[in-house]
Formats: sequence, C-alpha cells, structure tokens
Amino acid sequence: MRLNEDERAHDLAPLLQNGWTHDADRDAISKVYAFKNFIDAFGFMTRTAIWAEKYKHHPEWSNVWNKVDVTLTTHDHDGLTELDVKLARKMDALAG
Amino acid sequence: MRLNEDERAHDLAPLLQNGWTHDADRDAISKVYAFKNFIDAFGFMTRTAIWAEKYKHHPEWSNVWNKVDVTLTTHDHDGLTELDVKLARKMDALAG
Repeated sequence: MRLNEDERAHDLAPLLQNGWTHDADRDAISKVYAFKNFIDAFGFMTRTAIWAEKYKHHPEWSNVWNKVDVTLTTHDHDGLTELDVKLARKMDALAG
Repeated sequence: MRLNEDERAHDLAPLLQNGWTHDADRDAISKVYAFKNFIDAFGFMTRTAIWAEKYKHHPEWSNVWNKVDVTLTTHDHDGLTELDVKLARKMDALAG
C-alpha cells in the first residue's frame, strides 16, 4: 500500500532531510552517493544488493566510477511504500 | 589513443554484430544485458566490477532488477579505445 499522509510526514520527511529528493510525477525518491573510488562505490552496491534481495525489493540504480545514483519506488503500487523507506534507511546506514 | 579506422573495422565490428550499438556523438558503445533475475544480473555486475578494477577501466552502467544497461567509452580520450574493446569482450564472455 502506498504511503499515506501520516507515513509521509513521519517516515519520508527525515529521508528528504538526508539527501533524498522526491519526484512527485513518479512518486519516487532519489539520491546520489559519492565515494572515494570505484571499489568503495561498488562495495556499497554489493552490500545493498544482498539486502535488496533479502527484502525482495530492488533499487533502480546507476554507477559511474565513484558515484551511485539510486531511485526507489514500488512498481507494483505505482509509488512509494514502506519498502522504499526501509531500503532507503538501509542504504544510508550502509553508506556510513 | 582512440581507435583508428582499421581497429574499428577489426575490433568494433564484431561487437556491433553482438548486440552493442555505437553512439557516434559520444563515440561510445552500449548494450543491454537481460538475465533471469536480480541475483544473476548483480552477479554479472560483480564479476565485471572486479575485472574493470583490474583493467583500471570502468563502465557507466545501470541496473533495474534483471537488466544491466552498459555504456563504454574512455573519458580521458573522449571516445573509444582498446580498453573499451577489451572490457566489452570480457563482459560478453562473463554474460555467457
């Protein structure tokens, strides 16, 4: 189920204050992570990948050397759900 | 050094017959790989990542679940070099 108003105020707002931006058209959130180099960027992706598979919820993401550009939304629900909040929080934690 | 005419005929042509497309504006090549699922897609990315680091030459790439969209070019030379050919061949081999 898509996030309701209360959940957006409570769960989404802190993410938006932590570098995530909201695309209202897609109801998706995006963030660009920058690391020291490719090994650190891909290391972050690898740890995220295993969590994503465990959560059964995967990011749309791209990588160019030290940068990882992530977009999260829940395709089955055409917008943001608690799964996106959970994965966003985990990625922020993994990025350190 | 950017690929010359002979190298393009000899090295690039087989890649273009194997699913790679050439963007003349950027002088870059791109390919979309599709796998059974996320584990296979990210497994391919992981193996590629280690080779890329070893080659000191990294792809621009994005992933959405079972798909991996790759673009190769050599930023230092504003176009395609033998490094791109080498990495493209390796990725085709790794994708199996």
